[in-house]
Amino acid sequence: MPDFQAWASAHQQRFEDVLRRLLPQPGLAPQRLHEAMRYSVLDGGKRVRPLLAFAAGELVQAEVARVDIAAAAVELIHAYSLVHDDMPCMDNDVLRRGKPTCHVQYDEATALLVGDSLQSLAFQLLAEHKLNDDAARQLAMVKLLASASGSRGMAGGQAIDLASVGKQLALPELEFMHIHKTGALIRAAILLGAQCGAALDEGQVNRLDHFGKCVGLAFQVVDDVLDSEADTATLGKTAGKDAQQDKPTYVTLLGVQAAKKMARELHRAALEALSEFGDGARRLRELADFIVLRKF
Amino acid sequence: MPDFQAWASAHQQRFEDVLRRLLPQPGLAPQRLHEAMRYSVLDGGKRVRPLLAFAAGELVQAEVARVDIAAAAVELIHAYSLVHDDMPCMDNDVLRRGKPTCHVQYDEATALLVGDSLQSLAFQLLAEHKLNDDAARQLAMVKLLASASGSRGMAGGQAIDLASVGKQLALPELEFMHIHKTGALIRAAILLGAQCGAALDEGQVNRLDHFGKCVGLAFQVVDDVLDSEADTATLGKTAGKDAQQDKPTYVTLLGVQAAKKMARELHRAALEALSEFGDGARRLRELADFIVLRKF
Repeated sequence: MPDFQAWASAHQQRFEDVLRRLLPQPGLAPQRLHEAMRYSVLDGGKRVRPLLAFAAGELVQAEVARVDIAAAAVELIHAYSLVHDDMPCMDNDVLRRGKPTCHVQYDEATALLVGDSLQSLAFQLLAEHKLNDDAARQLAMVKLLASASGSRGMAGGQAIDLASVGKQLALPELEFMHIHKTGALIRAAILLGAQCGAALDEGQVNRLDHFGKCVGLAFQVVDDVLDSEADTATLGKTAGKDAQQDKPTYVTLLGVQAAKKMARELHRAALEALSEFGDGARRLRELADFIVLRKF
Repeated sequence: MPDFQAWASAHQQRFEDVLRRLLPQPGLAPQRLHEAMRYSVLDGGKRVRPLLAFAAGELVQAEVARVDIAAAAVELIHAYSLVHDDMPCMDNDVLRRGKPTCHVQYDEATALLVGDSLQSLAFQLLAEHKLNDDAARQLAMVKLLASASGSRGMAGGQAIDLASVGKQLALPELEFMHIHKTGALIRAAILLGAQCGAALDEGQVNRLDHFGKCVGLAFQVVDDVLDSEADTATLGKTAGKDAQQDKPTYVTLLGVQAAKKMARELHRAALEALSEFGDGARRLRELADFIVLRKF
């Protein structure tokens, strides 16, 4: 069995080709929009959400070709949220993954339509490929991604984030925001990966979801720590941006040491949620390690 | 059988309650986002797309409660596109349906998230309510709405529209733009309404789709004529905006008389596409009349 690094690289490389194939081809009209969609999705990021979907897919012996589609749908939602988030009326960021953001490279109107179109494409993928022999279970996958993306999920988290600028948030409020803003989609990635294979019982789904909740929060805490410590070149995006914008983070709220301790505790809780799954959950455990330990 | 006006009013009134019920309730967190979503959808418009869905639903004896959901999904996509379209980086419009546009009433970031969340909600509705006894047919409905909304449908049409500002378009290019920008969603409304009931054969679906294509174009031509003739108070949105922004319209391209003639020809072609359907298509015919004859 390949070690984690080899497993992750193999999936990342194959998945890049999957995205290249699923996105509208560059010559297709309207060309500028399709180019900008590809620019915003391809060659970027660690693909953490897709990797979580692949790891959850392995837990249920799902066909990789099916998990590819579910993972792509989640990644397109993530990519659309970054494009819209970077726009001047939101975070007004000019750099993302070491490249100019979409509205800088193209223009604001195009960035708006890129985000809108990536969202539509995510749902199109979930509906047009066979992801489960049971069409009713596949409909449930559409519902899961839609509610994780919407006003009670990711977009709602962004609204809470916007409303929090310049405010003194308590820890539970910060947690509530992140559970929506980043947590909802991370949980969806895991559950969608698992929905491509053999059905889990309700208790197993709940434990997997709790794993996702812990990993999602840990991911954010680690991001805040890295953001407070790294410089822009290492990060590939503007560093220290949240603190500059007077946005509450786990570091500004708890201090670096307590934030690191919190990440370690979430890591432990995540692994505990997987304890009954045996060796099938190996990659999920390794991903939890990777997310928490990537830099400290 | 009620006359068209009574039929349309009854549906419009009931449908307003349906939307009120399906949208996130105003007290629910994040409150400002949910209020803005309701502000952008409720109390507005003639609900032409939903009426087309109801009329198509009658053709196949679909349960009205199912068509309500399909119609709501289409209307939420339409509403999201208006919210994003009105933003400063797109059409920069301050008035819509006689009210301040969403980004004026709230702010740009909220308007961005309102549009994003309305799109997610549309797909959530299509997935979480039972619209067809056959789940595979319902998945096909999700695919239909997603592709009608995305870069090869509505959003793609908006991209072509943006690229056309200040350009001399030929009639086929203008038609290509509108077939995407407004036509795709109108056709989706009709086909989704029809998908809620007894299955049509392929030829029937194609004729229904051709009806939708003709009606969709006629709708746009009539809009251009009205926009060139009406004043802002009558229209409930800024009049003459397209011409001011140097955007090509059927009126600037053909002149008012030829544009009216074109609308009448499309009207005739739309009715012809329904000729084999008999009395079940009565409301579709009346809607075609309504769309073309509403003002001239």
